[in-house]
Parts: sequence; structure tokens; C-alpha cells
Amino acid sequence: MATVGIVMGSDSDLGVMSKAAEMLEELGIDYEMQIISAHREPDELIAWARAAESDGMKVMIAGAGMAAALPGMCAALFALPVIGVPLSGKKLDGMDAVYSIMQMPPGIPVATVAIDGAKNAAILAARILAVGDDAMLAKLKQYTTDMKEQVKAKNAHLQEVGYRNY
Amino acid sequence: MATVGIVMGSDSDLGVMSKAAEMLEELGIDYEMQIISAHREPDELIAWARAAESDGMKVMIAGAGMAAALPGMCAALFALPVIGVPLSGKKLDGMDAVYSIMQMPPGIPVATVAIDGAKNAAILAARILAVGDDAMLAKLKQYTTDMKEQVKAKNAHLQEVGYRNY
Amino acid sequence: MATVGIVMGSDSDLGVMSKAAEMLEELGIDYEMQIISAHREPDELIAWARAAESDGMKVMIAGAGMAAALPGMCAALFALPVIGVPLSGKKLDGMDAVYSIMQMPPGIPVATVAIDGAKNAAILAARILAVGDDAMLAKLKQYTTDMKEQVKAKNAHLQEVGYRNY
Amino acid sequence: MATVGIVMGSDSDLGVMSKAAEMLEELGIDYEMQIISAHREPDELIAWARAAESDGMKVMIAGAGMAAALPGMCAALFALPVIGVPLSGKKLDGMDAVYSIMQMPPGIPVATVAIDGAKNAAILAARILAVGDDAMLAKLKQYTTDMKEQVKAKNAHLQEVGYRNY
Amino acid sequence: MATVGIVMGSDSDLGVMSKAAEMLEELGIDYEMQIISAHREPDELIAWARAAESDGMKVMIAGAGMAAALPGMCAALFALPVIGVPLSGKKLDGMDAVYSIMQMPPGIPVATVAIDGAKNAAILAARILAVGDDAMLAKLKQYTTDMKEQVKAKNAHLQEVGYRNY
Amino acid sequence: MATVGIVMGSDSDLGVMSKAAEMLEELGIDYEMQIISAHREPDELIAWARAAESDGMKVMIAGAGMAAALPGMCAALFALPVIGVPLSGKKLDGMDAVYSIMQMPPGIPVATVAIDGAKNAAILAARILAVGDDAMLAKLKQYTTDMKEQVKAKNAHLQEVGYRNY
Amino acid sequence: MATVGIVMGSDSDLGVMSKAAEMLEELGIDYEMQIISAHREPDELIAWARAAESDGMKVMIAGAGMAAALPGMCAALFALPVIGVPLSGKKLDGMDAVYSIMQMPPGIPVATVAIDGAKNAAILAARILAVGDDAMLAKLKQYTTDMKEQVKAKNAHLQEVGYRNY
Amino acid sequence: MATVGIVMGSDSDLGVMSKAAEMLEELGIDYEMQIISAHREPDELIAWARAAESDGMKVMIAGAGMAAALPGMCAALFALPVIGVPLSGKKLDGMDAVYSIMQMPPGIPVATVAIDGAKNAAILAARILAVGDDAMLAKLKQYTTDMKEQVKAKNAHLQEVGYRNY
Repeated sequence: MATVGIVMGSDSDLGVMSKAAEMLEELGIDYEMQIISAHREPDELIAWARAAESDGMKVMIAGAGMAAALPGMCAALFALPVIGVPLSGKKLDGMDAVYSIMQMPPGIPVATVAIDGAKNAAILAARILAVGDDAMLAKLKQYTTDMKEQVKAKNAHLQEVGYRNY
Repeated sequence: MATVGIVMGSDSDLGVMSKAAEMLEELGIDYEMQIISAHREPDELIAWARAAESDGMKVMIAGAGMAAALPGMCAALFALPVIGVPLSGKKLDGMDAVYSIMQMPPGIPVATVAIDGAKNAAILAARILAVGDDAMLAKLKQYTTDMKEQVKAKNAHLQEVGYRNY
Repeated sequence: MATVGIVMGSDSDLGVMSKAAEMLEELGIDYEMQIISAHREPDELIAWARAAESDGMKVMIAGAGMAAALPGMCAALFALPVIGVPLSGKKLDGMDAVYSIMQMPPGIPVATVAIDGAKNAAILAARILAVGDDAMLAKLKQYTTDMKEQVKAKNAHLQEVGYRNY
Repeated sequence: MATVGIVMGSDSDLGVMSKAAEMLEELGIDYEMQIISAHREPDELIAWARAAESDGMKVMIAGAGMAAALPGMCAALFALPVIGVPLSGKKLDGMDAVYSIMQMPPGIPVATVAIDGAKNAAILAARILAVGDDAMLAKLKQYTTDMKEQVKAKNAHLQEVGYRNY
Repeated sequence: MATVGIVMGSDSDLGVMSKAAEMLEELGIDYEMQIISAHREPDELIAWARAAESDGMKVMIAGAGMAAALPGMCAALFALPVIGVPLSGKKLDGMDAVYSIMQMPPGIPVATVAIDGAKNAAILAARILAVGDDAMLAKLKQYTTDMKEQVKAKNAHLQEVGYRNY
Repeated sequence: MATVGIVMGSDSDLGVMSKAAEMLEELGIDYEMQIISAHREPDELIAWARAAESDGMKVMIAGAGMAAALPGMCAALFALPVIGVPLSGKKLDGMDAVYSIMQMPPGIPVATVAIDGAKNAAILAARILAVGDDAMLAKLKQYTTDMKEQVKAKNAHLQEVGYRNY
Repeated sequence: MATVGIVMGSDSDLGVMSKAAEMLEELGIDYEMQIISAHREPDELIAWARAAESDGMKVMIAGAGMAAALPGMCAALFALPVIGVPLSGKKLDGMDAVYSIMQMPPGIPVATVAIDGAKNAAILAARILAVGDDAMLAKLKQYTTDMKEQVKAKNAHLQEVGYRNY
Repeated sequence: MATVGIVMGSDSDLGVMSKAAEMLEELGIDYEMQIISAHREPDELIAWARAAESDGMKVMIAGAGMAAALPGMCAALFALPVIGVPLSGKKLDGMDAVYSIMQMPPGIPVATVAIDGAKNAAILAARILAVGDDAMLAKLKQYTTDMKEQVKAKNAHLQEVGYRNY
């Protein structure tokens, strides 16, 4: 019973989408990861997405490129939040996927993150879970604090060595 | 038993998509017209698109705007040609729909026509039917001849009256 | 103590953002609505966004146009989900706001919805709340069913009267 | 007497357009492949495109980049379906070709596929032929089933080894 | 025997293209104006464009919108300069026509002017004729001087009355 | 006394702009080539461009990238035809230069060619000179015939060896 | 002796550019306003821009649309800060002007503000003057405080009457 | 007490932003350089930007990519001029940052320079300082003269050796 489902349309998306998995692992969130193509396997997608809620899934992360129908179809089939990751392909810098994912019609929203932003999709999923999970909220705050400290350390290093030796 | 199916996601698309119907009527092609939303009625779409072939449908024309999943999902469910009409909405001049319809992944093509090009979608459907229908081919050639004569008549009028009095 | 906070940078955004309020009301979700400008009132924004969690807020909806810093700054200051609504202005069809909201750096996600998609922002907020609220989930499913019935009714009407009399 | 004609404006297009040929071969469709430039050889194009129908050609696939006039001129000269493949060049990611091919005026449609989508052009040609050819339809359905099985196999492999060892 | 040929694909282009005619008249250049559609009348276009040189034509001005093949085909058929005017239509602000006209392949240039820039097309034609016509060059210089005087007069008026009363 | 002036804003443009020189040499047109920056050397540009006509120059070819003011300023200072070549730089694929060169205000046209289209700029210059030079017109026709023969030879080779051995 | 020079290429720009004048007046900064076209009056532009420094001008605000060469040429001729205002015209939403103004080559910067952002250009000019003028700095801080109070007042009104009665 | 503050959101921006530092050094302007992330360290940004004026800072240069909130937030917190440098990242050629930086709302301008234009940001800062510093103005004029001489030397070299040996 995974809390978060990561789904992508092709194994060529794994390079980017695995960053979502890594981030979920870092935050201690259980997940499952599936390759299911909306256009090649509509029945499989429907079966998986329709069963997800009763299987205990709380959030979906769907990554797709080009005419990226997957996130929107997930949002049509699963009543809880769906996060869409527009994937850049060989051409158009991912703008085809941005429009296909973000421009959903009234009634069926997809929470779109940055182009190739799989890591942020995982953090957004964690934020959603944190609405009802104080431990997760604490973890996220710690993560934010850590990020801040990292930037501070980099800046301190810059002040110390200067940009020429950075 | 309609030969061509016209499908759109919303009744707000009727203004543009009715031009496909008018053109099919002019060419004497029987059609059915449906409002079925990919995102709001995935089951209805699947039922309709899956049954279409056995119902005798030969070509589908699917018009949609924004994150236009409808044409691609039709192409995933129906094995014969699907023509996609990107519809312009309030913003982006229809480029969101162009990318969502045209940028299909390998294996599931959609025949994309111009933005709001419903009339051309009907003519493309007729050309497809004409592959196996000499009478339809003759009608299309007559239509092309008529178009040519209309442009010629307009030019003749221009030569006669000049651009100031046109 | 509002569960959802709607914030926008200017009262000129009220026309679009009020659709989020209407949708939240329809779903029975309590909300507060604020006009706070990230660029004109950074201190006020920080005070409000920092206090939101302890005030009981679970989700923020931030709408902004042009160089839309508001949603991202909210996401920097509030640890729970922030939904961004890119607002179209007089020029660029809202693409300036899309990029300013969607292209967040790793670590601080904003859940971006469609251009001027305030209604979908509210539904996404409801989906997020529904992760821990079965009654809200049931309402959302009913809403989805109602949407489906409306499209079906429109299609039935089309079948009955034809597109010329629709 | 080829059933499908593949035409492109330059031998620099062969790398992409040969994918159409490979796909047609896989589906057992006979084709001819021509390099004819609309801008450099208007007479040759007219001669070839005008003769195509009487030579038995049923569908044309025209690939071109930049100011891609070839597909549209083919559609002006050949009454049966013309499929256009926008080719990306060194700049603009193929958007110049997309507009030049897709934005055809009323009366002369080109069935536009994805940028560099030569493989899909071949499958679309096969779908068109399948309207009157049950054996081709069966082949296409088998192809679709094979694609689905391939995605399933990849997903099964992912479930088995995990994304780190994929 | 016209020195300049103005050609456009549709009578809907007359509103913009007539500005080229007016400018040529102002400069005393004889011209003919034709409506010939590249996609609807390829034979007529070829006949007209091929005969143009022996008829005494020195420069062509071709205006077209959308998948604007007309200027490029004129440049393929006529060996002297062809000026292309990208016409904006209902969508895309004329960028489809810009790409279709400007992005010509090596060997067949079109001299592209601004979107809807028919007046500048006429002035460019005059500059081309002025290469071998000192009287025309003198007229162009006078026209430039007049433009400058008009701007100076406007500025003088602004200095006199201020922007509030301008 | 050069007939054609090639001017560019930086020696980093030489790689592309030298193709104009090569083409002019092939056509036997004498030219001069200058590096003059509109933004760094306004006085030098004015001196050169103002003197060009009396020095016998008939056509200018100006290539520039980014905020490409050079072609437009040449057209403001030289009364005969100015051809603009938008150069692609590291970003934006040359669209910044396209807009800066093509979108000239009424009265001062620049004949814009394709992005990085220096070769076509030279051919356009030759077409302009050919208006009053039958020998040049004959050369251009020969060049066009040669291009055609080259495409034909490539197609013949393709027919002979097939795309796999091309 | 004006401290700030407002310059624009055409009186059609006055509607937008007068907002810069109004803002400068509100801040008590003396200015002059000129209509000088870079393309129609290069000599006048050079004379004015070259004399500006010795006339006591400290900052220039240059507004232009389309191939907006004016701001860049001002920056080439005037050694102190030049602020560029990209003006939207009939097409392209001002993106042609943005690229023509913002994408300046190394060495000659233009301080670009938002599309049609003439008011912000004036405030930026005031900020520049405030570097050496404490009274101006105090005025700007007061202006910022006033803006903040206005937003607060609007928000207070919203809290009082609700969005339905706003 | 640095006169100019260079700030960027990440150490991955150092490659581009260090060109601003080098240019300031060349012009003899003292500066400090900071890595502070608007989204990761809002409090640190506020503390630094609010203290800058009393610390003696006169101009800020803020570089950021993607949803580049940093320059705008600096302009909200610091009353003197803020120069924004849109940084290109992996996708979109920096257009996301351009819109996020340039499209500031009325009241809070950011002086935007070219994509990755850090060197020009430094020169613009120097121009701003030169408003009240004649020695800096003299240095800038010398820099401009040097640039001109460099272009002249390159052109002289081209005239001497020709483009083939350049």
C-alpha cells in the first residue's frame, strides 16, 4: 500500500522521475513507481488509477512529455491530488508538456511543477501529506532549514575564498 | 451508423466544430456529433470510442482546447484515422491545444489541422474516405475546382473595379 | 481560523480570484481572502504567511500576474501546500505569470494551475484537504458526478435538437 | 505503383524521413521515396504530384523544414490525403515548419504530425489505408497490442529491479 | 506592362495589401494587383509568375497569411526580387506567416518585411528600382526628407502645447 | 568601388557572414566587407553608410545578432536596398535579431532573410542587381538550374541505392 | 536644463510615455520630452543625445515599439543611464520591442522596464537620481509608503464588505 | 562598505555573475558579492537588503534564473536602483527569468539587462554612479573609446588579411 504513486508514460522518463523517488525516500514516504502510457495502455491506466484510492494512495505524481495526457487523465480518474511534471524532450524545451498538463479545464486540476521538476513534485506531495501529519511537517521544516544552511555555507565559502577561487 | 464521428469536449466548442458538420453535409457524408469530455467522462469516452469501429465509423474528428487530451485519447481507443482540431480559447491563441494534439508520441498519431480549422478537418476526412470511394474523390475535385473559380471571379472583379471600389 | 487562505497582489485580481472563493463556498470550505502585494508590502506578506500555519491554515491559494512573485514567496514562508494561479494581464496572455510561478527552484514547489484558473485552484485545495477528510472526498466525487451529468445533459440536448438549434 | 509516396525537400531530411520508410516496411506497405524541392523544382513537384493519383498512390507523406511549402503544395496538387512532417532544423526547434505545414487555409488540409514525427506519419498512412483494408487494420491492432506489451514488460522489469538498477 | 506586381492569396488580404498600392501610386510606380492563391490555383500562379519577367515586371510583392506559401513559390518561379508581407490573421499575430515567408531555404530568398508591412514592401520595391533609376532615388530621398519634417513638426507641436494638450 | 557592402557588428559574426561573401564571389559581384558596430561606433557607421551611395554601392547586406540595430540604421542612412541577416547567438535562436531587423516602422524597410541566411542575402542582392543587369539575371537562372540538377542527382542516387545505402 | 530626457520615436507613443512625465512631475523632477525617430532622424537623434550631457541631463528614458532601435542608440550616444520602455503595438504584445531593447551587446546597457512600463521608467530614473540626492530618496520612500497604505486600505475595504460588494 | 552589491540565488550562478565582478574591478568600483536565495532565505534577504542603504550601498545587481524573484524582492526592499540579470538555465533560454524580472508591477522597477548580461549590469551600475561622479564618467567614456578602437582594429585586420585568413 503505497502512499504516493509515481507514474510516467515511458521508461525514457526514468532519468528525471527517479529524482521524485529519491526525494520521497529522503523524506521517508513510501511510494510505488509505475510505467503506464495513457495513449498506449488506456485500460491499464484506468484500472490502476481507479484502484489507487482504495489501495490507500493519497497523492499521485505523473510525469510526461510532449502531448502529455497522463497527468490530466490521472486527475480525471483519481479524486485526490495529482501533481504533474512536464518533461522536456528533444524539442520545445518541455513547453508542449507544460501546456498539456497545466491548461486543464475547470473541474479537474493538475498541480503543475517546473519543467523536469520531479524533485519539487515529491516535496509538494510531502507538503500535501503534511496537512494531516505533523511529523512530516516537522521533517519538511527541517529540510527547509537544511537548505538554508547549505546556501549560507556556500556564501560563507564565497566570502572566504572569493569568486576566483570558489 | 455514421461514417464520420465529430466529438468535442464542451458545448462551447460547438461554434467552431459545427463548421465541420456543415462541410460534411455539403459533401454528402453522414456523421454523428457528440459532446464527450475526456477529463469529465473518461468511461463514456472509452465506451463511445471503442464501439465506434464496430458501429461502422471510419474517421473521427476530435476538437478540443487548452490541455486538449480528447483527440489523443480517441486515437488511443480507435484504430482508424483521428483528426484533431486545436481550438483557440481565451488565451494563448490555441497554442496550448496545438501542442496537446500534435505532439503525440510514436505509435499513436493524430492528424492535426490548423487552429480552429474544423472545416479543413471535414475535408481531410473526405479525402480519407475518397481513398476507397471514387464518387467522393470526384466531389472533392469538383469542390477544388469551385474554390478555384471563386478566387478567379474575385480577381476578375478586382481587375474590373480596382481595389478602391472592391 | 480559515482553512484556506486566498491571497492576491492587487484588487484588480479580484475578478478572477473571486471564482476560487465561490468554489470553496460551494464545497463548504472556510477561507479568508487577502490583498497583499509581495513587492509593495514584503513585511505584511511575511507576517501573514508566517502566522498562517499557527492560525490553522492548511492550504494557500496565491494569484498574481506579470512578475508574479507572490505564490513563490508564500511557498517560501508557509510549509504547507501553496497553489499558484497565473493571472493574465493586458499583454502576454499570462505567460509572464506562468513562468514566474511554475519555474520554482528545487526545494520550494508551487502547485501551478491554468492561466486564470482560480476555480481549479479551489478544487485542488479541496482535493488536498480530502486526503484527510472523507466527507470532503465524497463531496468532490459528487461534484465530479454532477459535472459529468451536465455534459451528458448537454449532449442529449444536442442529439435532440441538432447543432443548428442548440 | 507505390501506395504511399514519401517526399522530402532535401537529402538532409533523409535521417528523419527514413523512419517513415522503415515503419511502412514493417507494416508491409509498398512506398516510393522521392527528394523533390518545392522551391527548387516546382515543375518536377507538379509533374510528380499530379501524376501520383493515376499512378495508384493513395496517401502522401511530405516532410520539410523551415518555410516548409512542400506538404501544402502536395495537398494543392493531389486530391487524396497528404500527411505533413514538420522537420526541426538548426534553429527554432521546428516551429517554423509546424506553422508552415499546419496553418493551411480552408479547403486544402494537411494532416500534420509531431515535429520530426516521421514514424507516426507512416502509422497514420496505414490507418488511412485500413479504412478500406481489414488486413491492414488487423496489423495495426497487432502493432498497438505489441506496443502495449512492450510497455508492460518494461514496467514489470522496473518492478523487479527498481529504478536504481533499471 | 506593370513594373511591380502585387499578389495576394485572398481578397481578405486587400485591406492590408492596398497600402502597398497606395504607396506605389504616391511614388509614381506602375503596378498590377492580383488575387492568386498558391494552394487553390497552383497552375494560375505558375502561369502568372513565369510570364512576369517577359511581361516586364521587375519586382514582386507577395502578401499572405497563415501557411503563407505564396511569396516563396513566387520566388521559385520569378528570378527577380520577391518581397514578402506576412499578414496577421485571427490568431498567432502573424507569426505563422513570418516563419512561412522568412525561413526560405538557401538559394531562393524572399525579402521579408514587417507583419502587415505592405507600405514598407512598396518602399522596398522603390528602393530596388532606384538602383537603376536616379529619378526614383531622388523621389525616395524626398520622401525620407518629408517623413523627417513631419516628425519634426510633431515634435515642435509637442514642445509648444505640451503632452496634455497634444 | 564595391557594388555590394557587407557589414556586421562584430568579428564573431564572420563565420556566418562570410557565406554572403562566398556567394557574391561565385556570382562575380564585387563587394567590400566591414566590421562596424552600430552601438559602439555610431559615427563610423554614419560616415560609412552615408558615403556608400556616392562610392557606388548599390545594395547593403547587414548582419547582426541580439538587439540588432545595424540593419535598420543602415536603412536609415542609405537610400538603396538594405538586406538584413538575423544572426543567432547563444540564446533565443536568433528571434531577438529577427524582431529587431524585420519589425521596421513604416518608411524605412529592411529586406529580412532567414536566420543565419547570409547566403540568401547575397542571392537577394544579386536578384536586385539583376533588375538592371541581364548578364546577372542569366547567371542567377543558371544558378537556379544548377541547384535543380543537384537535387535531381541526389534523388537519382536515392532511387539507385535506396535510403539505407545513401 | 532638464534633468531627465523622455524621448520616443513617434507621437503615437505619447499615450503610454506621458505616464513617465506624470510620474516625474509627481516626484518633482524636471524633464524634457522629445519625439525623435532613430530611423527617420538619425542626425537629429545624434545631435540631441550627444548634447544631452553638457545640457545637464542625468538620465534618459527612451520608449519605442517594434524594431525599437531608439533606446540602444541613445545608450550608444549618451554616457549616463538610459532606461528603455518596450511599447506594445498592434501585434506581438511588445515582444519585438522587448528583444530590440533588452538584448543589448556587451558594453552598452539599456535598463529595460516592463512592457508599456513608462511609469516605472520614471521611478527608476528617480531612484538613479536618489543615489546622490537624499531629498529624492526620502520622496521615493514616502511614495513606497503611500503605495503600501493604498493596498492596505483596499484590503481593509475587502475585509469589510467582502468580494461580492467590493 | 561596498558601493555595489552583487547578489545571486545560487552558487551555480557564479559563472555568469562573476563577469559583473570583473567589470566592476576593471572600473575600480568596490563591491560585495553575496549568495542569498529569495525562496530559501527570505529572512536573510530581507536583513541584507534592508541594511544595504545604511551600509552605504548605492546600486544592487541581482542575478537569478527560472522564477527569478530575487531582483524584484531586492527592489521591494532597497530604495536605490536594482539591476536584474536574467540567467539562462537548462531550458527556455532564460525567458522564464526575463519575464520574472522585467515584468514588475507599477511602483517597483527593476532595470533589466540582457539574458546572462552580467557584464552590462556592471556597466549600467557604473553609469548610475557616474551621474554624481565625474571621474567615473571619464572612465566610462574611456572604456567606450577603447571598445571602439578594438572594433576598428579588428576591421583593419579584416581589410588587411580578408575573411579567409582572419
